[in-house]
Amino acid sequence: MHNTTEILFSLFIVFVAAQIGAEIAGRLKLPAVVGEIAVGCVVGSSALGWVHLNEPLEVLAEIGAVLLLFSAGLETRVADLRKVGKVAGLVGVFGVIVPFLLGLASAKFAGFATPKALFFAAAFVATSAGITARVLQDMKVLGRIESRIILGAAVIDDILAMLLLSTVTALQGGGGVDVAKLAVVLVQAVGFVVVIALVGTKIMQKNSSLLDAPINPLSPLTLSLALCLGLAASASQIGLAAIIGAFLAGMVVAESSQRHILEKQIQPLMAFLVPFFFVVTGAQVNLRELASLSVLGTLLLVTLLAVIGKLVGCGLGARSLGKKSALIVGMGMVPRGEVGIIVASLGKQAQVFSGTTYAIIIAMSLLTSVIAPPALKVMLADSPPEEPEILE
Amino acid sequence: MHNTTEILFSLFIVFVAAQIGAEIAGRLKLPAVVGEIAVGCVVGSSALGWVHLNEPLEVLAEIGAVLLLFSAGLETRVADLRKVGKVAGLVGVFGVIVPFLLGLASAKFAGFATPKALFFAAAFVATSAGITARVLQDMKVLGRIESRIILGAAVIDDILAMLLLSTVTALQGGGGVDVAKLAVVLVQAVGFVVVIALVGTKIMQKNSSLLDAPINPLSPLTLSLALCLGLAASASQIGLAAIIGAFLAGMVVAESSQRHILEKQIQPLMAFLVPFFFVVTGAQVNLRELASLSVLGTLLLVTLLAVIGKLVGCGLGARSLGKKSALIVGMGMVPRGEVGIIVASLGKQAQVFSGTTYAIIIAMSLLTSVIAPPALKVMLADSPPEEPEILE
Repeated sequence: MHNTTEILFSLFIVFVAAQIGAEIAGRLKLPAVVGEIAVGCVVGSSALGWVHLNEPLEVLAEIGAVLLLFSAGLETRVADLRKVGKVAGLVGVFGVIVPFLLGLASAKFAGFATPKALFFAAAFVATSAGITARVLQDMKVLGRIESRIILGAAVIDDILAMLLLSTVTALQGGGGVDVAKLAVVLVQAVGFVVVIALVGTKIMQKNSSLLDAPINPLSPLTLSLALCLGLAASASQIGLAAIIGAFLAGMVVAESSQRHILEKQIQPLMAFLVPFFFVVTGAQVNLRELASLSVLGTLLLVTLLAVIGKLVGCGLGARSLGKKSALIVGMGMVPRGEVGIIVASLGKQAQVFSGTTYAIIIAMSLLTSVIAPPALKVMLADSPPEEPEILE
Repeated sequence: MHNTTEILFSLFIVFVAAQIGAEIAGRLKLPAVVGEIAVGCVVGSSALGWVHLNEPLEVLAEIGAVLLLFSAGLETRVADLRKVGKVAGLVGVFGVIVPFLLGLASAKFAGFATPKALFFAAAFVATSAGITARVLQDMKVLGRIESRIILGAAVIDDILAMLLLSTVTALQGGGGVDVAKLAVVLVQAVGFVVVIALVGTKIMQKNSSLLDAPINPLSPLTLSLALCLGLAASASQIGLAAIIGAFLAGMVVAESSQRHILEKQIQPLMAFLVPFFFVVTGAQVNLRELASLSVLGTLLLVTLLAVIGKLVGCGLGARSLGKKSALIVGMGMVPRGEVGIIVASLGKQAQVFSGTTYAIIIAMSLLTSVIAPPALKVMLADSPPEEPEILE
């Protein structure tokens, strides 16, 4: 047991550091998450050394990630996914396949062992729907066809990426390439996701008043949090990432009539706990690992590949929209943000990534999140706001 | 590092258990906290064994207690304390002195060593303002003169009890009865409480827009949470209980113009984190310690003394209101609730309390919280709702 004073001070420092980082990022017109992670790097043990990671901090960070993905799920409607239709589906699928193959090829070319190469490629696949959504919202272009496709595709991409990630994780846990075992893992993972995403949301749709206070004696918030913790633990139990369970719980709850109230109530929880996730993530980066020219060169190359993978893959998926719009969609899918960072953390937890690889993937996730917003801004301003309605 | 799955499942079980306990208590017309602690006893290692305490759970419980007291502070206005005036002050002071002396005398009579006797007496002093406030609110008698005195006195009582508790804790930490050391500890503790409670609230009063969003770029909630964590850590640093710092932070923030918004925003945070405090508290009780006739006899005696101490002490303080009202005020101050439990936890952490003493104090806190609400209900119904206005 650590000293109570020590733990309270570490909570205080992490929380305040997060606010300062978010504030600086805001003034530089960068996403808050970039500032929070950067400040984590600074207060972490490789720089100032004000925060030494301990188990309670790591659990708070995990809870923060779970709440973040729960809230992302809460903003995801099964019906909206269907509306954006085929183009979003194509963008989502190609946006996973191309970066994955590109990541795998370059990892193999660099001589990585298979588990490490798979994890590395999975980090290429990630898309942070949150960062892009915030940018589109800030620019008031959420109604544009590209925006709707980006958001729809980001969700499909998220689900595919999570499926891929869990397969990679399960494979890693299982050791060798046992085809029967792999099949069981895949069936379990796909089964869990499909059953909760389809059957769970359908049950909630048909009983959308299930969480209403007069019907259930408990509050909608506590019931939702219980579902979130339960599905996160279950996902973790069957070898999926806990956050997948949280995301699915959010999607299920999104179909209830209490959705808007929950979206509001989850805000203070996120304001308190999500910063722990980003600062702890940053604090895990050893800045010294990046302090060599060859590593910095690798970082630039990896970031370039990460950008190209999404531009080509998503652009291919959206090619029916015309070149300009296809590139806008591709750029919207570039930010890796928290999803790339989660993949990096999982890879580190599974002891697949070295400190250097971990630092490079975190830095790549940050760089893509920093590059995309201004690029997207220029491209959107450059392209006329009305497009022909060519969905379906 | 524990297994992520294991930790997530323990969070899930604790959270769901809390909801079930609160629900059952509600149906039995008992305060929710009674159900949450009781269910903690049941799932804990001495009974079902579903929850094994670990450091992350204990830190979450600590954060829950910090938020609980922050919210209690948020509902406490310095001005309101002044309004209820002398009677509340007398009730608060006598409500501390009489139970403390009674507790100390009986502990000494039982042959306890001085540190243990002091802690034991401190647990007699505690009053749970939360439980009484909830009862008065449910009965819609918050406007009655007794209610206003109870709430005012509960705050004074809280502050005196916390001061007493921190002196006891500091004495315990310091070892012997070094008068110079004791003086330093006392000056430090009193100084911290007085400076924050008077100067801090005055600064906030004069700059009540300090937390407003257009003035500060950060949100009022994050600033308040930062203040709460910072003062909790500082209080802990100088030897006070962390929750005193949190309570004072709440009192300071209560003077800002953002008070009502913050009261709302803190609710979801409390809904998520406070249950961890009560369930973990219950889970720490070893039920087997209570499973003997002599221990049960002691428990009944201790509970009786705890009731008499408050009835006599607070009744004395409120004797100017007439006998009936004085007894109502006394009964309103009987519940020990979470404050008694916090004292018990501190005593256990300081290794002053044995498992049996700890279990008896927790059980006494529960019993007083269970006895007082129905007794208060009968006494209030029995006494006419209008009383002469004899405050000042």
